[in-house]
Order: sequence, then C-alpha cells, then structure tokens
Amino acid sequence: MDYVYGPGRNHLFVPGPVNIPEPVIRAMNRNNEDYRSPAVPALTKTLIEDVKKIFKTTSGTPFLIPTTGTGAWESALTNTLSPGDRIVSFLIGQFSLLWIDQQQRLKFDVDVIESEWGRGANLDMLAMKLATDTAHTIKAICIVHNETATGVTNNLATVRNLLDEYNHPALLLVDGVSSICALDFRMDEWGVDVALTGSQKALSLPTGMGIICASPKALEASKTAKSVRVFFDWNDYLKFYKMGTYWPYTPSIQLLYGLRAALDLIFEEGLDNVIARHNRLGKATRLAVEAWGLKNCTQKEEWFSDTVTAVVVPPYIDSAEVVRRAWKRYNLSLGLGLNKVAGKVFRIGHLGNLNELQLLGCLSGVEMVLKDIGYPVKLGSGVGAAAAYLQNTTPMIPSRI
Amino acid sequence: MDYVYGPGRNHLFVPGPVNIPEPVIRAMNRNNEDYRSPAVPALTKTLIEDVKKIFKTTSGTPFLIPTTGTGAWESALTNTLSPGDRIVSFLIGQFSLLWIDQQQRLKFDVDVIESEWGRGANLDMLAMKLATDTAHTIKAICIVHNETATGVTNNLATVRNLLDEYNHPALLLVDGVSSICALDFRMDEWGVDVALTGSQKALSLPTGMGIICASPKALEASKTAKSVRVFFDWNDYLKFYKMGTYWPYTPSIQLLYGLRAALDLIFEEGLDNVIARHNRLGKATRLAVEAWGLKNCTQKEEWFSDTVTAVVVPPYIDSAEVVRRAWKRYNLSLGLGLNKVAGKVFRIGHLGNLNELQLLGCLSGVEMVLKDIGYPVKLGSGVGAAAAYLQNTTPMIPSRI
Amino acid sequence: MDYVYGPGRNHLFVPGPVNIPEPVIRAMNRNNEDYRSPAVPALTKTLIEDVKKIFKTTSGTPFLIPTTGTGAWESALTNTLSPGDRIVSFLIGQFSLLWIDQQQRLKFDVDVIESEWGRGANLDMLAMKLATDTAHTIKAICIVHNETATGVTNNLATVRNLLDEYNHPALLLVDGVSSICALDFRMDEWGVDVALTGSQKALSLPTGMGIICASPKALEASKTAKSVRVFFDWNDYLKFYKMGTYWPYTPSIQLLYGLRAALDLIFEEGLDNVIARHNRLGKATRLAVEAWGLKNCTQKEEWFSDTVTAVVVPPYIDSAEVVRRAWKRYNLSLGLGLNKVAGKVFRIGHLGNLNELQLLGCLSGVEMVLKDIGYPVKLGSGVGAAAAYLQNTTPMIPSRI
Amino acid sequence: MDYVYGPGRNHLFVPGPVNIPEPVIRAMNRNNEDYRSPAVPALTKTLIEDVKKIFKTTSGTPFLIPTTGTGAWESALTNTLSPGDRIVSFLIGQFSLLWIDQQQRLKFDVDVIESEWGRGANLDMLAMKLATDTAHTIKAICIVHNETATGVTNNLATVRNLLDEYNHPALLLVDGVSSICALDFRMDEWGVDVALTGSQKALSLPTGMGIICASPKALEASKTAKSVRVFFDWNDYLKFYKMGTYWPYTPSIQLLYGLRAALDLIFEEGLDNVIARHNRLGKATRLAVEAWGLKNCTQKEEWFSDTVTAVVVPPYIDSAEVVRRAWKRYNLSLGLGLNKVAGKVFRIGHLGNLNELQLLGCLSGVEMVLKDIGYPVKLGSGVGAAAAYLQNTTPMIPSRI
Repeated sequence: MDYVYGPGRNHLFVPGPVNIPEPVIRAMNRNNEDYRSPAVPALTKTLIEDVKKIFKTTSGTPFLIPTTGTGAWESALTNTLSPGDRIVSFLIGQFSLLWIDQQQRLKFDVDVIESEWGRGANLDMLAMKLATDTAHTIKAICIVHNETATGVTNNLATVRNLLDEYNHPALLLVDGVSSICALDFRMDEWGVDVALTGSQKALSLPTGMGIICASPKALEASKTAKSVRVFFDWNDYLKFYKMGTYWPYTPSIQLLYGLRAALDLIFEEGLDNVIARHNRLGKATRLAVEAWGLKNCTQKEEWFSDTVTAVVVPPYIDSAEVVRRAWKRYNLSLGLGLNKVAGKVFRIGHLGNLNELQLLGCLSGVEMVLKDIGYPVKLGSGVGAAAAYLQNTTPMIPSRI
Repeated sequence: MDYVYGPGRNHLFVPGPVNIPEPVIRAMNRNNEDYRSPAVPALTKTLIEDVKKIFKTTSGTPFLIPTTGTGAWESALTNTLSPGDRIVSFLIGQFSLLWIDQQQRLKFDVDVIESEWGRGANLDMLAMKLATDTAHTIKAICIVHNETATGVTNNLATVRNLLDEYNHPALLLVDGVSSICALDFRMDEWGVDVALTGSQKALSLPTGMGIICASPKALEASKTAKSVRVFFDWNDYLKFYKMGTYWPYTPSIQLLYGLRAALDLIFEEGLDNVIARHNRLGKATRLAVEAWGLKNCTQKEEWFSDTVTAVVVPPYIDSAEVVRRAWKRYNLSLGLGLNKVAGKVFRIGHLGNLNELQLLGCLSGVEMVLKDIGYPVKLGSGVGAAAAYLQNTTPMIPSRI
Repeated sequence: MDYVYGPGRNHLFVPGPVNIPEPVIRAMNRNNEDYRSPAVPALTKTLIEDVKKIFKTTSGTPFLIPTTGTGAWESALTNTLSPGDRIVSFLIGQFSLLWIDQQQRLKFDVDVIESEWGRGANLDMLAMKLATDTAHTIKAICIVHNETATGVTNNLATVRNLLDEYNHPALLLVDGVSSICALDFRMDEWGVDVALTGSQKALSLPTGMGIICASPKALEASKTAKSVRVFFDWNDYLKFYKMGTYWPYTPSIQLLYGLRAALDLIFEEGLDNVIARHNRLGKATRLAVEAWGLKNCTQKEEWFSDTVTAVVVPPYIDSAEVVRRAWKRYNLSLGLGLNKVAGKVFRIGHLGNLNELQLLGCLSGVEMVLKDIGYPVKLGSGVGAAAAYLQNTTPMIPSRI
Repeated sequence: MDYVYGPGRNHLFVPGPVNIPEPVIRAMNRNNEDYRSPAVPALTKTLIEDVKKIFKTTSGTPFLIPTTGTGAWESALTNTLSPGDRIVSFLIGQFSLLWIDQQQRLKFDVDVIESEWGRGANLDMLAMKLATDTAHTIKAICIVHNETATGVTNNLATVRNLLDEYNHPALLLVDGVSSICALDFRMDEWGVDVALTGSQKALSLPTGMGIICASPKALEASKTAKSVRVFFDWNDYLKFYKMGTYWPYTPSIQLLYGLRAALDLIFEEGLDNVIARHNRLGKATRLAVEAWGLKNCTQKEEWFSDTVTAVVVPPYIDSAEVVRRAWKRYNLSLGLGLNKVAGKVFRIGHLGNLNELQLLGCLSGVEMVLKDIGYPVKLGSGVGAAAAYLQNTTPMIPSRI
C-alpha cells in the first residue's frame, strides 16, 4: 500500500517538501466543493487578506496560483517584464541557475552575476552595474533570498539600499521559496516588488500552490508587460477579485482549507516566533556540523541559512551515499548535492513545522550514517553540541505554561 | 471550521470539481515525501504507464503537470505550435470560448468556427476549410470533446475522418476535460495528437493535476514549436523521464497517491463499465428533464452529453435562482448558466465516481427547487422517469454478486 | 483495500451505525495522545459538561465508557441494582428482548410485560403493576425509548406520570440508543434515572463509546447496588472525576475529539432543530411507505418512530431479499427484519447527520428494489409523496440565508 | 482546534497509547458501514484468523471486544472462573495491582504473591504454592507478562515449566497488554490459556479494542464458569462465529479496517523482526540511562523490558517534574511514575511502530529535561551511547535494499 515501507515515521529533512502538521492534514481531508458557491469566495477572501502577513506587506496583492515554485517564478517574470528586457540575476547555486535558465528561455536579456557556489550574491557587482546604468536599462533585479542548493541567504536589505542609493527604478523580484515564513522577510520595508513562495516549503502544505505577492509598482508594470501569458496572468485574477468570485479557473479546495489551517497555526505561534524557531534550529544544526569536524558549504556566517544547511563531506566520501544510506537504513530523508556540488555536499532541511527533538533525531541519524560510511565521527558529538545550544534557548511552549 | 455548514452530505452535482471517492481521500491523507527518493519515481512510473489506458493509447506520452485544465490547454498549445500559426477552433460554449481566448492571447491565428450555443461543432464548415486548405496552412484543429457549458459532445471520429479524407496533416488537439474517463474516448483510433483532462473531473480527484497525453507526432512538433514556454515545457519532463527521476520540479505527493487510487478504482470497475455508467446516468437525467417538461440546452440527440446536462428554464424563471435555492435549502450544488446562457440554463453534472441513487437524490432535489420557485412540476415525475430507466438497466455490482 | 467495492457512495440507511459527517471524520483523523497530559482532561471536561445537553439534564452525571450500547445497558443495570431485584421490563421487539435477556443473565427478577411486535409498551399493564406494588418490590422500570427493530417509540412522559401517580420510587432506566439526539428526550423533566446511547447512532460517530447519564438518585443507588462490576463501575469514574484526570483507564483519543466535533455540529444546528429534522425525515418516509401501498410495522401513529421505519412486505416477498438486492445492485444498505419479523419487514434508518436529498435517494432506491423483486410499485410514487411533504416543510439552511 | 498546540510533532513516548503509523490512520479514515452486510464478516474472518499469529497460536480462539485492556482482563477472568475460585496473582507494580483489585472485586479468592516494585514475579513462591496444592484448589495463575509501571518482564516459560513440573491443571491467564506484538510471546508453546492485549499498545492502533485469545481449555472452562457476564461473554461471540456473522453487537468499523492495516504492516516487517526491533530499542534506551548515570527501576537484567523503561531519578528530583517539563518545553510525552514509585521514576515507552531516530530524538529530549531540572548530565552522552549500539545493530530496511 505504501512503497518501500519501513517501520516508524519517515524523518523528512529535505529542504522541501516538508512535514505537514496534523491539523493541516486534517483540514485537507475532505471532499471537493463547488468553487462557485458563496462558501469558497468567503474562505478565499480571508486567505488573500491573511497571506499578506507572511510577506509583511499591507500594500501587496497576493495570487494563489495552482502551480509550483517554478510556475510562481514564471508568473513573477511574465507579468512584469517584456521580452528583451534587461534584467540582472545572481547565479549562486542550482535554484538560481534554474531561474536564470527560465529567464533566458522567456527571452529576457539576462545579465548574470555569478558567485562561487557557497557564497552569496555579489552585491558589489550589483552596485557597479547600478552605478553605471544611468539610462535605467536594467528593468529588474532577480534574486533568490535563500539558495536552497547551498544554504545561502542573501541580504535583501542591502539590495534595496543599493537601488535607493542609485535611485534606480528597477523592479526587485525575489524568490522566497525557501525563506518566506521561515526567515525574516519584509516585503514593504525592503521595497520588494514581487515575492513568491511555494506551499510545500515553510508553509508546510502539500505541493501545488504558488503564492505570489505583487507590489503596486509590479501591478502597474503588469499592465504594459508584453510577455505572453495566460494561465499565469495576474489580470485574469484581478478581474475575478473585482467580481468577488476570486477564481479565473478551478482552485484546489483542499489546499485552500489547508492554507487556512497553516496560516492559523503560524499566527497562533506568532510569525516572529516561527522565524526565531528557524534561527534556533539552523544554529543548532551548524553547531552539530562543526562538532563533527565538517564544513558548511556556506562560506561566511553572514550567508548562513536558517532553513537549509549544506554539509561538505571529505573528498573520500560520496555525499550521495550519505543520502542513500540515510534513507535505506534509518528512514531519514536528506537532500542531495546538486549539480556543481553533487557528491560533495548533502543537505539538511530544517524548515517548516518542526521542533527541537525532531531535529536532534535527524542529527543523530546523520552521525550514524557518517560513521556507517567511514567518516570518523564521535557518536553523540553533534547532537550534544546542538542540544547544548537548544537547552539554553528553547522557550516553553506558550499554550502549556 | 466549515463555512456555511448544513446537516448531511453536500450533494455535489456541478460538472467539476466532482465527488472524491473515500478510497481516494484516504490515499491522499498523508504527509509529504522526498520526491527524489526511489519511492516516488517507482510510483510515477506506474502512473505514467497506466494513465495511458484512460486515453486509450499505447503510443502516447503522458504528462502529469501540477496545474489545472487551463494550464493543460496552454501546455497543449505552446508545445506544438508557434506564434502566428493558423489553427481552426470551434466556439460552441463558454469553455471553447475561453480556450479560443487563450489561443488568441498566445498569438495564434485562430480561425473560429462558431455554432449557436447548444449545438455541436460545425463539422461541415471544417470540411470546407480543410478542402480548400491545400497549402496546409492550418496547423491544428482545436476542439472541445465535451462542452461543459452546454452539455454538448462533439463527434471526434468524424473530425478524424475529415482530416483523413482531405489527407490533411493538421494536428488534432482535444480538450477532454469533461469527457476523458467518462465518455468514449479513443486517442489512438481517432488519431488525436494532444488530449488533456484535469484531475477534478471524471477522475474524481482534487483539482491540481493537468493530465496531458501527446502523440508521437505531437512530440515531434514540440521539437520545433516556437511558442515560449518553461513551466509547461514537455521537453523538461522528457529529460527527467529519460533520467528516471521523472520530475523537473516538485509534484504533489498526495495527488500522485490519489491518482494511483483513482486509476485502481477505474480499472477495478472497468473503464468501459465506467463509460457505460456515465451513459446510463446521462440518459436517466435527460428522461427526468423531459418528464419535467423542460428542454435540454443541447439541440440534438447526437450531441447529448453523458457528463453534464444543461437544462433550459422557462423565460419567467432565473436559472441562477435555481442554483442558489438548491444550495441554500437542499445542500445541492448545481452548475450555473454561463455567459450567453446565464439565467437561462442550470446544469446538472453527472460525472465521476457517482451512482444511481446519488443521481436520483439530486433529481428529486431539482424537482423540489423547481416547485419552490414557481415552475409547475409534478414532484416524483422526473425521478420516476429516471428510475424507470435505471431500474431496467443498472447491472448488479460485480464484486457483490 | 475496500471489500466489495461499488462505484459512488454507499447509501447507509441501517438504523446504526449511521453516516459520519465529514467534520467528524476529520476531527478523528489523528495520532494517539498521552491521556494523562493536561490536554485530554481539559477536553474531557468540556465533553462531560456539554453531553448533558443532549440528555436535557442539568443534574445528571455522564459517563463516556469505551463500549457499545450493550455495555451501556450493563453499566446502567449493574450500577443501580442488586441480584434478585425485581424489575419491570417491556418486551416489544428484538432490542428490548436482548436487554431483557441481559437483565435475566445478570440475575435480576425480571417482570416482563410483552406486547405484540409493532406495538408500544403496554403502559396499562405497568399502571396495574405499580398500583398493586404498594410494598415497592419493583426496584426499576426498564424501557426502550425507541425499539429499533420495529420502529416503535414509547411514551416516556406517561411512564413518569404513572410513577408519580402511584408515588412509586422505582428507578426509571431508559435505553435511548436510537432516540437520544434524534427524538425529543427530557431526562430531567421526565425523571429518568439512567439514560444511555451509543456513539454510532444519532450522534453520528463510529461505534465505541457508550454514553450513559445518571440522575442523583441513580448515583445514590450505585453506592449500595450489589451487582458485581469493575469495568463498568461508575464509582471508578467518579473517583477520577474528583481528581480531575477523568479516566480510570485509557479512552479513545479519536472518539473524544470526534465527540467534540459531533456535539459542535449538533449545537450549531440546534438540538431542537435536529429533532425537528428527524421528525421531518420520519414523516416523509412514512408518506412514501403509504404511497407504495405498504404497511408500517408500527401499528399506531402514537408509536411512529422518527428514527427508523420498519416496512412490512407482502407475504409473497422475503424482506431479506429486499435488503440483499438493495446492497448488491444499488449500493444501498437497509436494515433486515429481526427475529419474529425476519423476512417480513425491512427497515429504513433515518437518523443521524442526514438530509432530505439523501433520504429521497434512498427512497427511490427502495422503490426500484421493490419493483426488482416483483412488488408492483409505481416508480416515483413514494419519492414524490415524500418530496411533496419535504418541499413544504424544509427550512432554509440558516448559515446560508 | 487542538488543545495546547506546539509546533512540530508530539513525541509520544508514554507506554501506550502509542504512535499510530500513517497507513493505519489512513485505513481508519472512513465512514461507518452496515456491519450486517457481507463485507464486514468477510473482513472479520481474515482478522480472526490473522490475529492468532501475533499470539503465536494455532489452536486459540480470538475475541475482538470493543473495550480496553481493563475490559479484556474482565473478559479473561469472568469467562473462565467462578466466584470464590482460588487464583494466584503476582503483585509487582501498578498494573498487576489494578488487575488484582479487579480480581478481588469480581469475588475471586486471590492469593497474592507480592514482590518489591522493580522485581519480577516471585516464581519460587509460586513453585511452593503449586507444590503444596495437591488438591488443586488453585484454579488459575494470573500474571502480567510485562508490568508497564516498572518495566519488568516476567518469564512465562518458567511459569509453564512449574505448572508442568507439578502437573498442575490451573489455567494460565496472561496480561500481555504491553508485550504482545513487541516481546517474544508464545501462547501455544507456553500453554497460555488466556492471553490479552489492547489495540493502543504494540499494535499501534487507537484505544478501543480488547484482543483476547482463549485456548481450547479456556473455552472449555467458559462452559461452566459461573461468573456473571453478558457484554464480555465469549459464548455470545461463539454463537455468532458459528453463524458466520461474527458480531453479537456493533463493532467499530474503523478499528476493524485499522487492525487489518496494522496486521499487514506487522506481517510485512515480520513479527520476529518487530520483536527484534523492540529488543534493539529497549537495549539502546538502557544504554542511555546507564550513560546518564541513572538507575533502571528494574533490578535485574533478566527482567529488563523491551517495551518500557522506568528510570529512577535521584532523591532530590521529582520525576513528575521531568514529565511535566518534557511536555511543556519539548513536546515530549513521557510516562509518570505511578503509586509507590510516583515522583521516583519516569517512564520511556518504546513500543509500537517506532524507529531508531524517533527514539534518539526522545533520548536527547530526556537529556535536556534532566539538565533543565538540575541533574548534571552531559548532553549527548545518552544519545551517543544508544547510537553506538544502534549503529552496529540496525538492519537495512528490507524493502529499500
């Protein structure tokens, strides 16, 4: 009934899709409904309103599109830009690479700023480009907030500051797939024009909903953007928003109720507490990696990611074997190293609806796998280091005090 | 937690999304999984193989895209055609209208053959166009197998015959959204090049999966088609099919398991039995409509649809009021009349995992609503007429004999 | 994974177990929990308090025992009576028979007042017995509020009046298995000492919880009752109530959350509206039976049951064949005739979370089955008669007005 | 919607109810069914047959009673014994104490052999009693296989040997509540006459099913046993077994399907592999306790339990505070010390559908709690010790090799 059954829970520590909390699974356990009845628009209205909070925006307009992160990317680009437009994009890992590939295939003129994998976006180079672009040929800056392949978090505030410094009107488009609801993200404060995420990431839902938020400036741009689009066209959505029926085509009823439950859980915990929890779990993971004597793929602390840690293995070890063995022996799902870092890193995703003991179980599993494949780790060292930090910093569960 | 609760089951008779059978709901009641583990490709492989059966194809290549029917349309068009290509398309109701709108926005040169709403595609006109198109400027014929807005089923075999007769190489693209898995559909026999449906229709799943099947000729076309596409690009899928990992981006784990269960149920019943059941329920519905003294929006028997019946109300009645009242008083969800037939027809969807007594409950509800709003129906007349037919034709449930 | 699968929903019209509404299924879709954590007592406290409302009592003490109706019976008897105690009990059908059998096996001196099956309890005979029992040898009156086998509802108010008239101190023990939450039941007003039901009846939960409510007088009796009991002993529960931990042994976490949801749905609809809905559906069913030219097993209107209708078939028909065929051809589950009325009646259960169109679907199914097996019914006659009544009496769904 | 919500999974390590695996939760996610249709007996038949395997019996007769372990006890006793019968019973902890209390309240003449809590049943004393009981006044030996309060496993083979040695005909009644499906248990080989467990223990189901298995000798005894019983009477079950309808009263449909899934999972893993897994997890837990410098409540290795470990805290610590804090800070549910060991021990349940990393997560949580409340534990020490053992002994997951 299940493929490749193993006893006990699967320990899901890929950086997406992530664990779905029970209340969300419950909320989605339902029959279909007529999406043209008054019930679904009433529900949708609360979602559109409340989803703004996870972007920290009041002026943005959200779109809940039945697609994935890849589709959300496409929606962000095609609604705001025209073929041939010059855009600046940062290549720092596999997901920024894929986005750039999409940008090129969508016929934009992509000005790629590349960094070594493991480093953040080269913002000095951006500054240079902005400084020289007095003609404002750059129409948009595209940046991944958190590169899921290397565990690198870029500094968006700095990007905004540079745009302001050079008084540059370029749109700021942000892939927040592995950041939003987990890392500090401030759409309005940072003047982000389009931000997006996918339901299966920090929101802890199944895959299937691309969540995009557009600033007034982005909406304005969508009126003249010449990229061809239909399925992803914001204007169809806006037309139905105006009518109060919300959906130009059929949404997933289950995901709507699931999103309602997911938001409720996040608001009950408090978005800032959710972000603090991610910081705590991220730091604990890094302490474990250090205790194992391994290196973080991320080269500097300023780029450390609180949602995913890419761990560099010694040259004599194949990181894919770590992942394989974790799954085959301990029912532990880790992330593979991708592309340039294939075989060199494995990844621990620590995002979404997750707590301390889940992470410590994962870290003890990683230790055992490392030992299994011949890396001389002291069992208990990483878990102990992580626990030492967590035991000092974990707050009491508010509802239980 | 439910909006607008009413006691008892909701009677869901819109032509999609439709009722999800319990075994499918159960199969989807699960946590996320790593889609890069060996389990998900193993599952996907069976799906890709088995889904061909519902298209009745052995040579087709299926794509299971995280999108809706609208996205499936876009996938069919952009993968096979180039901007400016001349295509012939039939406008016979709201959904063919929307598809044509999409075709135009995607920059094709759409040669629209319009019929009165309630009539099928004008195939005589197609014949004329094919006859005169000796230069083969027509690159594709786009046709909706079953127009969900008017309950009209087009004759695809005739379309194929015409193409053969004129030896015309145009691609045949078919919207099978409200037909596949419910109406007789023969991809290989009819030489369909792209066929597509959505998960929330006769497959009886939640919304969120566009299921597209491409003929070898369509795949060939995709190599040169110049329409811009990324998210919907078949070639990305094909690349991952070849690698055996199947997914260029994250699929919905829940929908994959749901599709497995949905296909299992269909095969257990037997696809031809499923189609026969739809025919039985469709005919029963039409007999009820007749008994009520009302007219079917579909003007001729040859176009009668076995998945949806659009019922014309007398001029003194607003069909939207039928739908509203059904929902507000009897927890019955019916389809509205759309666009040209708004206010004039209401629709009964009778597709998906549905049986005789569910339909008879619906029909008795429609009777009561009609009486509620002043139409002089004899209560029991339509249900009785439908039952008379069903009592003669319903087979014993095979597993229970 | 399902036995004997048939397409579409099963139409569940046995008089228990009944259909579980989706919100309750959802609420129960969960992992186990530690029942000694503070969460479970907090939940239990609300249940103990709120469950009183379905008995219409403020002074009663509820017990939620992990058992069935049969166990609830045993709990009622053994906690209040001693072996050898004289009790008066009414035999009017299979379930009162089974209770009497239990009473005898528990060593009480059972004074049985028998009625023809299809008639209510003989209260004249009760009056006579009470009149002559000036020594108060009768320790308890045991009566089934609604005999599920014949569809007979007894008049409890009259029983109370008789006890009052003769100033008789006998305890009044009531089996409310197929009545509570569906029929008008007034524990305090009628001076009922023990009332009980099972979760799988009008509460619309799975089987597994016996719900018993004891008056102060019954609790007092439990202090001296000499019947041997441990699992069913109220005093163990009371001890844990006092400690605030509530459970002498492990409860079903799932049923507790399910009961919470079930009560919430009942209170949202309003208990009196729930009862009115049962009255409406009961009456509609009886009108259908009449239209078919068949007889109700219940001999007089005063005993008509609003939760179950036992339909008498003509002598040339085997009612078991009706039930078999309903299931095998139409996926319709009806109740068999039991014991004395086996082969002579079939039963339609119309209790629990059920609405008009569900019932009409069932009634149309019964019509078809009757015709199948040779009874000359006019298809549509019964459904039409029921619909005529329902169309006049069904209120708008309050949340949707 | 949830009481006292905390982020992430609850870590459920009480010795019951235990974690329910997802496939079982899915199997139970369903509507009610008519238990008198042919489907339910067909399902039940497979359960009755297959459940014997978890008792390792071919000659036993199982009963699946809608009750808890407490009811299963009562069923075992009242079906085989008569009031006044002399039985020998071992008091070694809270659950044996409760069973003895039940035995006394059921009016048996209980000859209690007491041990210090933390020690196993005194079998020397049993030998003495058997040796002197040449008149065979002892009708039954009642023994708890695994005392859940202290983590003590008794040696049943020795009990059988003693009975054989003295050629004593006493029945052997075994509480296997926290052993069956987890510890080595051999009903036929050890000549156990009644064995029983509860669904919420190693079977990993919700609470609500008492599973009892009776030897032919026990069934024979049930024919003459004079203890009053109705709900728990095996003879009612046997009557319905003979008829092929199986159920004297309504079972929980959901638990039947759940049991089917639970057995399937156990058989897929292999019962002996399940037992070996429990041994592995039990040993790992004990190694952690040792590494923390704490004592196992169980005084000798021969009694160590592989399903629950009771950990003795130093006198200056209140073990209830360990449990409270684990739940309030780390979402970890541990078992309290009960009665004589209240405040002195806390318990780690490691039974049911559980794997290595889940346990290691729990152990790291216990370490943090111990440190929280002032016990000087080195974080990582226990987890490391457990991991060192598990890393050497955990097999690959067979389906994934």
